Amino acid sequence: MTGSSPRAVSRRGLLTGGALAAGGALGAAVAVTAAGSDDPATRPAATTPVAEIGLAVEPFHGTRQAGVATEPQAHAAFVALVLRPETDRKALGRMLRLLSDDAARLTQGRPALADTEPELGLLPARLTVTFGFGPGFYRAANLDERRPPSVAALPAFGIDRLSPRWSGGDLLLQICADDPLTVTHAQRVLVKDSRPFATVAWVQQGFRRAAGAEPGRTQRNLFGQLDGTANPKPGAPLETAVWVPDGPTWLRDSTTLVVRRISMNLETWDLLGRTDRELSVGRRLDTGAPLTGTDEHDEPDFTALGSGGLTVIPDFSHLTRSHVAEDRLRILRRPYNYDGVPSADGTADSGLIFASYQADITRQFLPIQRRLAERDLLNEWTTPIGSAVFAIPPGCSEGGWIGQQLLG
Amino acid sequence: MTGSSPRAVSRRGLLTGGALAAGGALGAAVAVTAAGSDDPATRPAATTPVAEIGLAVEPFHGTRQAGVATEPQAHAAFVALVLRPETDRKALGRMLRLLSDDAARLTQGRPALADTEPELGLLPARLTVTFGFGPGFYRAANLDERRPPSVAALPAFGIDRLSPRWSGGDLLLQICADDPLTVTHAQRVLVKDSRPFATVAWVQQGFRRAAGAEPGRTQRNLFGQLDGTANPKPGAPLETAVWVPDGPTWLRDSTTLVVRRISMNLETWDLLGRTDRELSVGRRLDTGAPLTGTDEHDEPDFTALGSGGLTVIPDFSHLTRSHVAEDRLRILRRPYNYDGVPSADGTADSGLIFASYQADITRQFLPIQRRLAERDLLNEWTTPIGSAVFAIPPGCSEGGWIGQQLLG
Repeated sequence: MTGSSPRAVSRRGLLTGGALAAGGALGAAVAVTAAGSDDPATRPAATTPVAEIGLAVEPFHGTRQAGVATEPQAHAAFVALVLRPETDRKALGRMLRLLSDDAARLTQGRPALADTEPELGLLPARLTVTFGFGPGFYRAANLDERRPPSVAALPAFGIDRLSPRWSGGDLLLQICADDPLTVTHAQRVLVKDSRPFATVAWVQQGFRRAAGAEPGRTQRNLFGQLDGTANPKPGAPLETAVWVPDGPTWLRDSTTLVVRRISMNLETWDLLGRTDRELSVGRRLDTGAPLTGTDEHDEPDFTALGSGGLTVIPDFSHLTRSHVAEDRLRILRRPYNYDGVPSADGTADSGLIFASYQADITRQFLPIQRRLAERDLLNEWTTPIGSAVFAIPPGCSEGGWIGQQLLG
Repeated sequence: MTGSSPRAVSRRGLLTGGALAAGGALGAAVAVTAAGSDDPATRPAATTPVAEIGLAVEPFHGTRQAGVATEPQAHAAFVALVLRPETDRKALGRMLRLLSDDAARLTQGRPALADTEPELGLLPARLTVTFGFGPGFYRAANLDERRPPSVAALPAFGIDRLSPRWSGGDLLLQICADDPLTVTHAQRVLVKDSRPFATVAWVQQGFRRAAGAEPGRTQRNLFGQLDGTANPKPGAPLETAVWVPDGPTWLRDSTTLVVRRISMNLETWDLLGRTDRELSVGRRLDTGAPLTGTDEHDEPDFTALGSGGLTVIPDFSHLTRSHVAEDRLRILRRPYNYDGVPSADGTADSGLIFASYQADITRQFLPIQRRLAERDLLNEWTTPIGSAVFAIPPGCSEGGWIGQQLLG
C-alpha cells in the first residue's frame, strides 16, 4: 500500500476542523508542499507536520470497514475473542452495538461511553477498529448459511507448526493506529466491554515503521526484505481484488482476512550470504527490484536465463512461487512485524504477523499459499505458527453497527 | 522532559546534510513555523515535517552519554545482560569496543560492521544506545573500588514483589528510538555481538506517545496520569540533579540509573471513582494540576485546607510523598509504558518501566522511594515486580569507547 488517498482524506478532514474540535489540544496544523521528482532516490519528503500524527482521523462510518484499504498505521493489535457458550444471536447484537459505539467514538478522538481513562481517548492517531467474524461467530448466531464459504479453517500445510496459542478465534478486533498508547487504550476498552460475551483467545501486537519515518516506501520485514511490493494498486485493481461487489447485504462490500503468525529464524538467515538470500527471495535486498530488473516495481522476467543456463530468478524463489499476474487474483498484504523477548542465549523471537485481505480466500489466497507451501526457498527460514480466518463484514452508517446486515 | 533543544540539535544536524548523506533515501525536508500562543489549549502544532522522524540523529560521541537528557524517544528496549564467568577486565574492554562501535554507527544511520540486515540500519530515528554498569560489572572487572557506592542492590521494600525475571543484570543497554523497527534492529545487532561475553538476563520493551503525536506535552501513563511533571528543568536544575560534576575520570560526567518494573492493576484502578483517583495522585487527571492549582506546573500547596479541615492534597497522596523541593535532590524520570498480552478473562498485563537518572541513588532516589514505600495511596494499585541499578559511565569521543576511563 503506497496510495496516499486515505491519508489525504484524513488530512482534509483534519484541516476542516473535525479532528481539531474533537481533540482540542493543539492549534492548527500547517502543511507545505516540497518540490520533488518521481525518482525514488530523490523522492520528496512528506511535509505533513508531525503534530498531525496524533490528531489525524480515519472515518469509522461508511459502506466498507476502515483498516483494510487504509494506509497501514505504525502499530497494530490483533485481538481474537472466543464467544462464551451463552452468547447467541441476540447477545451478539448487543455486543456489536456496544463495540461499534466504542470504535465509532475512539476512532474520532472521543472517549468511549464508559471510558475510565478518558484522557487516553483524545488522540486518535488514525485509529481504526476492524471487526472480523470467524466460523464460530456464524455458528453462535445460528446463521452458518450466511457464512462466506471460503471463511473456514484452512487446509493443513506441511510447513505448518500451528499452535492454538496463535490460532482460531470467533471474533477479531484489528486495532491499528500510528500511536502505541492509542492502540493500548482502545484494546483495553474493547476487551473490557467484550467480557460479558467472550474471552480472549490471543492477542498479537505488531509494528511497522513509525508514521512519517519513511513516507511512501514499501515496508521492510525483519529479514530486511521489502514487503508488500506486489499488492494490488489503489483504484480498480484493489477494488477487484479485495471487495465483494454484490450479493446479499451481509456480503456486499465485505472482504475476508487471513492472519498467520510466521516465525522468522533470524539465526539461520543471518548465516546465509547476501547472494543466496537474494536468490531465495528473487529480489535484490537493497532496492527490492526483481533480479531481472533495476526498480522495485519492474515486472519480473521469469524466463530470463543467466550465464549457467538457469533462470536468473530461481524457479523456487519466493517471488516466482507467490507471483500472481491477474489483479482479481491478487491479495492485499497488510503485515506487521513482531519482536518478542530473546532467549538467554540471544535467540530472537521475531517474525511477521501476516495479514492478507482478499474477496475470496479459496480463489485468491489458497492457490498462492499452496504454491508456497509446496516449494518456496524461504520456507527454510520461516515457520507458520498461527493461523486464523475471518469474514470482514460491510461497514455501517452513523447510528448503525457492524454486523447489523447479518444479525439485525 | 519537555526541553526541545536536543531535538533542535538533531534537526540542525539533519538540515546541514549529515543524516541525509547517511540515509540517502529522502529529499530535503521543509520546515515552516506556525503561529501560536502559550495557552496550552491553543499551543502551536510542532512543524517538524514527519519525514524528519526517520532521519533525525542524536549524537553518540560526547562527554556524556546520550539517552539521559535526550528528549525521550517513542520506543525503548532495556536489555540487561549477565556476564559469562570468563568475561574479565580484558574481555570487557573488547566487548565494549565492539558494542560502542555498533552504537556509534547505528545511531548515525550507518549499518554496524557485521550488520547482516544493513538496510535496517539506515533510519536512525533519534536512536540512542546508553550503556549501564551493574554491580556485577565491577566485580567481573576486579574494579569494585571504582564502583559508585550508591550503585548497589536497593534495600528491600515492603511493597516489593520482585521477580528475578525482571531484576538485576551486569550490563544494561538502553536502546531508544522514535521508530520501533530501528530499536528492534539495534537490539538484534547488540545482542548478537554480546554473545561471546554475556547472556540475556531480561529485556523490557516500552513505549510512549509516538514522535510528534503530542509535541511538548508531558506523557501519560496507562492510569491516564501525566507522568514526569516534577522532573528537573533543562539547564542548571537538570545539570545539578543528574550529572556527577567531579572526581576521577570514570565518575566525572557519569550518572546512575534505577530501572523498576511497576505492574499497574488496571482492574482495581478502573473501579475507583475519579475523585478518589485524584486524591490518590494529588493532581487532577485532566490537566495534571495539583489539587490546589489550575496548571500542571503550579507549585502544590500542601498546607491548604479544605472544607473538612483536612489538607486539600492528602498527606498520603503520591504527589505529597514524592515531592522534592530542592533541585539537587530531584530525580530525572524517563519512564516507558508496557502492555503485555491480557489473560483469557481480559485482565491487563500493563504497567510502567520506571527509569530514573540521578547523580547519587542513595542521596536522591532512596529517600523518595522510602517515603513512597512507607505510605503512598497509589501503592494500592501498583506493585514493583522488577528492580535493577546501574552506573551510567561518561561518554567517549570519536575513536574511543564507553567504559574506557574505567577499564582502559
